[in-house]
Amino acid sequence: MAATAGPAPEAQASGQHNPARVSFQTAPDRYRHWRIAFDGAVATLLMDVAEDDGLRDGYELKLNSYDLGVDIELYDAVQRLRFEHPEVRAVVITSAKDKVFSAGANIRMLAASPHAWKVNFCKFTNETRNGIEDAAACSGQAYLAALNGTASGGGYELALACEHIMLIDDHSAAVSLPELSLLGVLPGTGGLTRVTDKRHVRRDLADYFSTRSEGVGGAKAVAWRLVDEAVPRSAWSQTVAARAAEFAARSARTAGAAGIEFTPLDKTRTDDAVSYRHVSALLDHADGVAAITVRGPGQGPPAGPQGIRDRGAGFWPLAVARELDDLVLDLRTNEPGLGTWIFRTAGDPGLVLAYDRLLLGSRDDWLVNEIILYLKRTLRRLDVTSRSLIALIEPGSCFAGSLLELALAADRSYMLAGVFEDADPDSDPDSDPAVIAVAEMNLGALPMGNDLTRLQTRFFGDPDALAAAEKLAGQLLEAGDAERLGLVTFAPDDIDWAEEVRLAVEERSSFSPDALTGMEANYRFTGPETLETKIFGRLSAWQNWIFSRPNAAGPDGALRKYGTGQRASFDRKRV
Amino acid sequence: MAATAGPAPEAQASGQHNPARVSFQTAPDRYRHWRIAFDGAVATLLMDVAEDDGLRDGYELKLNSYDLGVDIELYDAVQRLRFEHPEVRAVVITSAKDKVFSAGANIRMLAASPHAWKVNFCKFTNETRNGIEDAAACSGQAYLAALNGTASGGGYELALACEHIMLIDDHSAAVSLPELSLLGVLPGTGGLTRVTDKRHVRRDLADYFSTRSEGVGGAKAVAWRLVDEAVPRSAWSQTVAARAAEFAARSARTAGAAGIEFTPLDKTRTDDAVSYRHVSALLDHADGVAAITVRGPGQGPPAGPQGIRDRGAGFWPLAVARELDDLVLDLRTNEPGLGTWIFRTAGDPGLVLAYDRLLLGSRDDWLVNEIILYLKRTLRRLDVTSRSLIALIEPGSCFAGSLLELALAADRSYMLAGVFEDADPDSDPDSDPAVIAVAEMNLGALPMGNDLTRLQTRFFGDPDALAAAEKLAGQLLEAGDAERLGLVTFAPDDIDWAEEVRLAVEERSSFSPDALTGMEANYRFTGPETLETKIFGRLSAWQNWIFSRPNAAGPDGALRKYGTGQRASFDRKRV
Repeated sequence: MAATAGPAPEAQASGQHNPARVSFQTAPDRYRHWRIAFDGAVATLLMDVAEDDGLRDGYELKLNSYDLGVDIELYDAVQRLRFEHPEVRAVVITSAKDKVFSAGANIRMLAASPHAWKVNFCKFTNETRNGIEDAAACSGQAYLAALNGTASGGGYELALACEHIMLIDDHSAAVSLPELSLLGVLPGTGGLTRVTDKRHVRRDLADYFSTRSEGVGGAKAVAWRLVDEAVPRSAWSQTVAARAAEFAARSARTAGAAGIEFTPLDKTRTDDAVSYRHVSALLDHADGVAAITVRGPGQGPPAGPQGIRDRGAGFWPLAVARELDDLVLDLRTNEPGLGTWIFRTAGDPGLVLAYDRLLLGSRDDWLVNEIILYLKRTLRRLDVTSRSLIALIEPGSCFAGSLLELALAADRSYMLAGVFEDADPDSDPDSDPAVIAVAEMNLGALPMGNDLTRLQTRFFGDPDALAAAEKLAGQLLEAGDAERLGLVTFAPDDIDWAEEVRLAVEERSSFSPDALTGMEANYRFTGPETLETKIFGRLSAWQNWIFSRPNAAGPDGALRKYGTGQRASFDRKRV
Repeated sequence: MAATAGPAPEAQASGQHNPARVSFQTAPDRYRHWRIAFDGAVATLLMDVAEDDGLRDGYELKLNSYDLGVDIELYDAVQRLRFEHPEVRAVVITSAKDKVFSAGANIRMLAASPHAWKVNFCKFTNETRNGIEDAAACSGQAYLAALNGTASGGGYELALACEHIMLIDDHSAAVSLPELSLLGVLPGTGGLTRVTDKRHVRRDLADYFSTRSEGVGGAKAVAWRLVDEAVPRSAWSQTVAARAAEFAARSARTAGAAGIEFTPLDKTRTDDAVSYRHVSALLDHADGVAAITVRGPGQGPPAGPQGIRDRGAGFWPLAVARELDDLVLDLRTNEPGLGTWIFRTAGDPGLVLAYDRLLLGSRDDWLVNEIILYLKRTLRRLDVTSRSLIALIEPGSCFAGSLLELALAADRSYMLAGVFEDADPDSDPDSDPAVIAVAEMNLGALPMGNDLTRLQTRFFGDPDALAAAEKLAGQLLEAGDAERLGLVTFAPDDIDWAEEVRLAVEERSSFSPDALTGMEANYRFTGPETLETKIFGRLSAWQNWIFSRPNAAGPDGALRKYGTGQRASFDRKRV
């Protein structure tokens, strides 16, 4: 592995047991596996995985197979396309390799990875693919998969996240989901769900397709809806270009705007702390707790979209979204032992609401729209994070509007009634009781994966309570009102606060981490399911189960035996 | 264990490693754990679990805790209440024990059971609770939980399946879900899903409740919506009676009708075969295949509801539903090594359609309604069965209307184009090509758990294909048309038939059984999710994962350590 390779310094050290942390920060000039080309309204994302540049040692990324490092670059590219390239209205994903699009997630990497790594890897790749769909649905930036060779497994799943799939028709290229037949696992990056629920492949054909390792190509792939068109090699480049132009022409994305640059995050990372400009976290490994603080804006909002552009990546809502996003990814990947995340905020709730108003009032501006969508995606990432989330709402906090979503995303919230008694009323800025505020930002702009707001999810089946909470939008609510309205879980006063919070946190870390993950995955998604929640709920849960079964991950399981020339040995009992 | 105890002879033999098969056939005069009392429109199901009568040795069913044997009796009671007691409009479930309703699934039983047994046990208990809800929703037979003492875990989950929950308010009785805190597993019998999605307990309160092993009682249980009312002991009997009478009065169930008796099934069971009057199965343990044949009616339908009543439990559609139901349960529990179920039918499609017409034309008759609903539930049991289902549609078969649902429930179907060449056209009854028929019964009367018909699920997102199939309702379709319409997967002719079918079946048994389970659980439920599909999809999948994790089921896991006085030892990494 080259010394300068990989997504970022923390991730560069090699060796499977290397304690080096994975970093999710990268930039196009550091990409090892992708290239981006721009041609007016069309960008081309060229997958060209460097075989020897795996994030860990022990496997080669042949045939455009990928590991977390490859996907971190893809995520970075997708994000930058949205923010730095407003002119891009269609993105073509294709391969720089001859005759292969992508062989999917690297099998040796999967086989060698511990359970938690596999699960976390799948979650991140799922989020990136959901983000690709979000770009098409909400930003007028449609992705097209130009499969210039076979797309297998995760390679085809990446295509499934695109709006349009073209497959070269050369009598050898095919799309396939060989996970079940070759590896004894599922196409777990949304594959099973998207085949039927998005592309509407008939379920029995999907079954057949998913047990046929060689896949399906040509006219049959079109007839079965696995791809949108099969294109002869002679017409390939021309058709890809034409289709991209068509999608670009259909987009309503603002023309003529200038992007803003995703400057490097100002991040400090030690074993015990992570800090950014607005977000910080103290990592308590002894107790298994990450104490996260999000700071509100230090100044008022600019006057309008131009003022936002002037502040660039430093604009508070965008900076907070980026920092929080990076923190969630960092902690999820690098700190699996920190099972409880405590969220605090600090700042002026009025200022948070002022920023929210600016955003909502300028949503027809492409950049403002992107910022709101990014915040939405970051909060969704939190929703599917397998950590217990507890919000502590104390004097001096600013859980209002967009930041109230952190408390609503939490499994539980505690809000101090009154003030801390030892606070000096003359000098202490925390001498006023804590307040929270529901605001317009909570009423639809930041929906969860189930397409409900967090308030709607919270009050699912209780329209009166929902209406009562929504009616007070804009008002600053103290603990008594917040508890009465059901916006916080508990509102202890100073006498009980420390003990109640301590007990809640200690108790949490005494429970089975797996059972907590399962409980939270159920309770956080009340009500209807969508493609997205089905992927994280039904599909991922089954995949996690399969990953933990000896038939896949045991010494004689299919994942381990792949490529050894030996057959897997299965316990044939159906469960 | 008493020699005459248990649900049926096969299940009586004791010893955990006893190869004796579990039987799902029982009758009230053989119940060991339940009593039923009738008082006009109100029946009372009294839970009185016999501690020493566990289905297996090694645990005592203390405090009305239950095992599969207890639940088999409950299922039998629920079924008989619907068919044998049309006069019953409200069912009160309560406990014969002092100060305890039920402690839920027996923990020592769970701790000692292999993974497959736990999963299968949870599935069956889930189906029975779904059936309780179905009785209320579709049969005017509402269940009320009268919790005369603490209901913990599965005890409370049983209450959650009822329409109304009364909890005695004596300062000690509570409802609780202690699975997570005590056992490191989930309340997997619908508990997590019903708390939020059915009873609309706020998610943060649900979180708190589910981590508090002592539970919640009294006014707080009402305020949090965990129960509908807390009733002082002094008013208990009177209130329970009053509430049951209210629910009974609201029911639209036909008054004055006489029930029909669920006579014992005419079943023969050997190691290699199961046979009933209309359904039979050959069990091929070497290949891991159960070859199931469902025979159509041997005679025409009676003239109307009175004729149905005259035939009683022998009425073909009812008999088929009972036999199929029992077969599915038998094979699921006793034959986990048979991973592929092949479905054939034999008979006159015209006669099947004639029975269907009779049923649909008389649906306002309570008994006819019950028969259709039973068929619906039996097919849903098939939908969540972790076996690969393959339908073989051959000459002489009768996959029409209600029986076409078997082919639509299958993961794949093969329909012979033409006839078998060695068939003698003069003497062979199979000399006409196979036909199938979509009919009215396929258009709404037998919805899946996702509330779609199997046709709607099959053609999800393809309204034109759905309309084309529905438009041909009533017509007998040969293989070419059936394949063109997408009603069958493949239609090979005689030359290819044997080879294609053999390959499909052999291939199936070469795959990882776990991966097949996961794939089928995803593909069978395209589209929207409901309370029921969320329980089998999201909740059960997470539970299965947790069951397979060392933190629960390992030697130092919480399930194993419970009651030993030792603490479980957890891998603290969050996954």
